[in-house]
Amino acid sequence: MALKIALLPGDGVGPEVLAQAVKCLEAVEETFNQHFIFKEAPVGAIAIDKKGTPLPDATLKLCKDSDAVLFGAIGDPKYDNDPEAKVRPEQGLLQLRKELGLFANIRPVLSHPTLLDKSPLKKKVINGTDFVIYRELTGGIYFGEKKLNEEGTKASDLCEYTEDEISRIAHLAFKAAKGRKKKLTLIDKANVLESSRLWRKVVTKIGESYPEVALDFMFVDNAAMQIILNPRQFDVVLTENMFGDIISDEGSVIGGSIGLLASASIGDENALFEPIHGSYPQAKGKDIANPIASILSAAMLLEHFGLTEEAWAIKKAVDKSLKKGIVTPDLKENSQYGTNQVGDFIAHNI
Amino acid sequence: MALKIALLPGDGVGPEVLAQAVKCLEAVEETFNQHFIFKEAPVGAIAIDKKGTPLPDATLKLCKDSDAVLFGAIGDPKYDNDPEAKVRPEQGLLQLRKELGLFANIRPVLSHPTLLDKSPLKKKVINGTDFVIYRELTGGIYFGEKKLNEEGTKASDLCEYTEDEISRIAHLAFKAAKGRKKKLTLIDKANVLESSRLWRKVVTKIGESYPEVALDFMFVDNAAMQIILNPRQFDVVLTENMFGDIISDEGSVIGGSIGLLASASIGDENALFEPIHGSYPQAKGKDIANPIASILSAAMLLEHFGLTEEAWAIKKAVDKSLKKGIVTPDLKENSQYGTNQVGDFIAHNI
Ligand SMILES: CC(C)[C@H](C(=O)O)[C@@H](O)C(=O)O
Ligand SMILES: CC(C)[C@H](C(=O)O)[C@@H](O)C(=O)O
Repeated sequence: MALKIALLPGDGVGPEVLAQAVKCLEAVEETFNQHFIFKEAPVGAIAIDKKGTPLPDATLKLCKDSDAVLFGAIGDPKYDNDPEAKVRPEQGLLQLRKELGLFANIRPVLSHPTLLDKSPLKKKVINGTDFVIYRELTGGIYFGEKKLNEEGTKASDLCEYTEDEISRIAHLAFKAAKGRKKKLTLIDKANVLESSRLWRKVVTKIGESYPEVALDFMFVDNAAMQIILNPRQFDVVLTENMFGDIISDEGSVIGGSIGLLASASIGDENALFEPIHGSYPQAKGKDIANPIASILSAAMLLEHFGLTEEAWAIKKAVDKSLKKGIVTPDLKENSQYGTNQVGDFIAHNI
Repeated sequence: MALKIALLPGDGVGPEVLAQAVKCLEAVEETFNQHFIFKEAPVGAIAIDKKGTPLPDATLKLCKDSDAVLFGAIGDPKYDNDPEAKVRPEQGLLQLRKELGLFANIRPVLSHPTLLDKSPLKKKVINGTDFVIYRELTGGIYFGEKKLNEEGTKASDLCEYTEDEISRIAHLAFKAAKGRKKKLTLIDKANVLESSRLWRKVVTKIGESYPEVALDFMFVDNAAMQIILNPRQFDVVLTENMFGDIISDEGSVIGGSIGLLASASIGDENALFEPIHGSYPQAKGKDIANPIASILSAAMLLEHFGLTEEAWAIKKAVDKSLKKGIVTPDLKENSQYGTNQVGDFIAHNI
């Protein structure tokens, strides 16, 4: 049965990097005798320009009818500094997460042996880092009620969580920890926030069903230090939406380049895979964006559907490009390889 | 006129480090012919134990009647993992900030030449870092309405800001930038939060009255990366309460040790000075806690009242202890100097 994959290139360098991921999936089709059905639809700023909304109905329908979504990137600076903008590209991504019920965002944080020198952190600090962040993705302050008074002088956002929202992702995280180093760290601000206290209570209770997993707690301010002081202490990190946004971007510098980091967003019925980097508008059309994060997103997609060997083939080809230095300029100064060439090299090595 | 200084030692290592700061202020009295009036009161877990509340009325009154507060640290693990606890030590600090109207928390982030090797970040990344964080301290999600439904299955925290709350700290931050490298970076999440959009609007408008200051904006997730990728890009950083908590603790690793970092919390009528480190309960009573952050808090206090020369004398004495290696074990492995000895050395060199 052929996997139906929705392609949402989005804005900035999104289309360029996504094209390389598709190349790799096509190479997988050939080498492993698989068949994927690709269909493309607009999302983000480009969808606003074309259809007046960042998530057109047809795009949402395509995603719902597909087995998985492969996402490029979203965002355009022309909306960022306009506090009055009525539609924003990011709404498209947030609405998509909500509509598809993608409640768990999973971001592996690894130190790459070939890239230890690229990180701003010392080698001895990051060497051997291997943890994974489970970020709640459809609740919290992102989706709580937003208010602005009529005079435009008072604004608010509500951070709300229910036991159910917490427990479904907690179970996923505990299961992941069971198959790894058996440690789960909940990051919260339970000394200040009521919602964090609910997280602590629910996660503690669920932890009783996973006696083999050691559970500990860390305040988010301390976590922001610990993650760069001693990243090897972590195995599975579980946290709410906003803290997860901050902590996972911070963690991304450990790998030496945000251009390498993929993420999976999982729900009960759907899944979306995307690089964690943004739309990087300054690089658009210049053939310099690093396609590896997008290519590794495709590998995560394959893994999600049990195509382990196929995913492995992509990851090995990526490793080869890193080892041989067939990489974009962000990873090697004055590299003469562009987005396309790196994509070609990896695809050919699958 | 003698400055009235309220001493609030608090919990954990708070009393030990605060005692060293007082030693240094006493040395200043002698050397510079100054006179300070010290009065002490309990706060935090110790106040709960003694009086049933983390901020007894008498403590609050003492602070209100004083010119400034010198604060130790707060927090005790016996409250952290108890989601049902009705009183918490941290409430004492939060209430104190609110009651004294300490709306601006100011945290300098500097790389110390003698401590470049202690940071997990590479020397070339942090060398020359010199910025200051203005964190809003009496608004946002810390103080918004908190709710827990009766069944204990749903909890929420409200993040609310008014134009006035934003503009009073924004003016302070712009003024600081004017006297520094003339750059102000607002950290927010304006692509998602209504309150962040209000921040951006108000700060942009106020920026027009400070044409010599270059204003830019950064999303908090990106900021969490930038602060460790390229900390030299920052001059004055302005942000709301929760983001400031996270970002400033992250920034603290740049200096090589959180044991060195002091902060000032300023209001219209009062001011409080404290180390940014916590109560570090594991170290309590062991004479190993680094007193420098507390001592530098005392220097910030003097500066705040225009006692520049006196503050300078403290800072020079601290530098001497760092250069000579008269420091606690957190800064030098196997150091034989304890909290008290380091305090004595610095006080004697004033
Ligand atoms: C684009 C933005 C809304 C989004 C988020 O904050 O979730 C992004 O930063 C991410 O982490 O995927
Ligand atoms: C103790 C805690 C409530 C406090 C805060 O979050 O503000 C602390 O982390 C700080 O930054 O001063």
